[in-house]
Amino acid sequence: MRTLYHLPLSPFCRKVRLALGEKRLEFALAFEPAWEKMPEFMSLNPAGTVPVMIDEDGTVVIYSHVIIEYLEETYPGTNLIPAAAAERVEARRLAAWFDEKFHAEVTTRMLYEKMSRRHGGPRAVEASPSMASIREGMSYLRAHLDLIGALAEHRRWLAGDTLSIADLAAASHLSCLDYLGDVPWSQYEAAKEWYVRLKSRPSFRPLLNDIIPGMPPTRYYPLLDF
Amino acid sequence: MRTLYHLPLSPFCRKVRLALGEKRLEFALAFEPAWEKMPEFMSLNPAGTVPVMIDEDGTVVIYSHVIIEYLEETYPGTNLIPAAAAERVEARRLAAWFDEKFHAEVTTRMLYEKMSRRHGGPRAVEASPSMASIREGMSYLRAHLDLIGALAEHRRWLAGDTLSIADLAAASHLSCLDYLGDVPWSQYEAAKEWYVRLKSRPSFRPLLNDIIPGMPPTRYYPLLDF
Repeated sequence: MRTLYHLPLSPFCRKVRLALGEKRLEFALAFEPAWEKMPEFMSLNPAGTVPVMIDEDGTVVIYSHVIIEYLEETYPGTNLIPAAAAERVEARRLAAWFDEKFHAEVTTRMLYEKMSRRHGGPRAVEASPSMASIREGMSYLRAHLDLIGALAEHRRWLAGDTLSIADLAAASHLSCLDYLGDVPWSQYEAAKEWYVRLKSRPSFRPLLNDIIPGMPPTRYYPLLDF
Repeated sequence: MRTLYHLPLSPFCRKVRLALGEKRLEFALAFEPAWEKMPEFMSLNPAGTVPVMIDEDGTVVIYSHVIIEYLEETYPGTNLIPAAAAERVEARRLAAWFDEKFHAEVTTRMLYEKMSRRHGGPRAVEASPSMASIREGMSYLRAHLDLIGALAEHRRWLAGDTLSIADLAAASHLSCLDYLGDVPWSQYEAAKEWYVRLKSRPSFRPLLNDIIPGMPPTRYYPLLDF
């Protein structure tokens, strides 16, 4: 069985779960507390990061963008990177934008700050969560929601006519914040309309069923009407 | 003319220069002080990062790994990502290892710390360079040199039989530190032998001719015998 080592609130793991779902590839999820650096896991991935995927033939694939390139090349059919060169560039650019810029500006400030209080991961030893940092993250989040809205008003999906890794990357980061109830959707109608379309897809359903012990999601997290 | 917006001591820009050189694609270099956020440049790349490549047909390509995937798909011939699936996974994994892990553990501590004193980029406003941070970077650097040596003793190139993005990524980060004279090559024979082979390639020559005004390279930086 194909296996994905993951953490439920890792945007990078969520992106791979969505990609596997869109491609209708079955997989088992293995919860991996990466911060514990278990020897068996470290021998799979010396970088100690999730996601790590072991494919049916035993191929070990590491890093979310590498997993997705691998899935695209190995399992054609539903493509998450468009065919034309200019569109491939745009889809990969936007995926990197969310995985690097949104991650640095928003996810680290708003999600990791809160998570560190919860499960004593490696960040718990760093400075305690700061409200100033969370507020700063929120102001960056608003700029990203504006960008998503602007893109979604001119294109069917973020990178063009078809659903792509750009949508999956953006939605993965947002869905983690949404679990905590921290996305001010009501003020961003166009971004919300785009997110509802994603949230309605079968690939999204497993993410909406995630429940982290001792840290239930906000009430509207699994709802399509919010 | 194909143009690459770059900074001379950015490992990510160097990786693209090496890729273009290996593929024998001509290009003009445009120095871009990214930290000044010039409006013309920000309209090309709202993320404000280098490298940015404008191809001959006007296609704008952003982020080093996206540029290299684009070059591989658009200009086949000399391939920097191997053909077989398992080797593609390994080459991309190691490229990401150096671009993420080496970058975070070594480059940010040893290169950016020193550069911030020089040209007053955005990092200059942060805490002043700390010797503790540089020492910490050096200890990580030693672990990475051990890894490179171990890989180079079992494989012709880092990811397998052929030169790949793994070699270009590792060499790009190391060449920036080497400019400053900060790589303890003499204690890492296997890694040094691998680096000499790379340094001897025509694609590397332009990097060895880089001279940053007011900050000349260490004496042996351009030499093949060091």
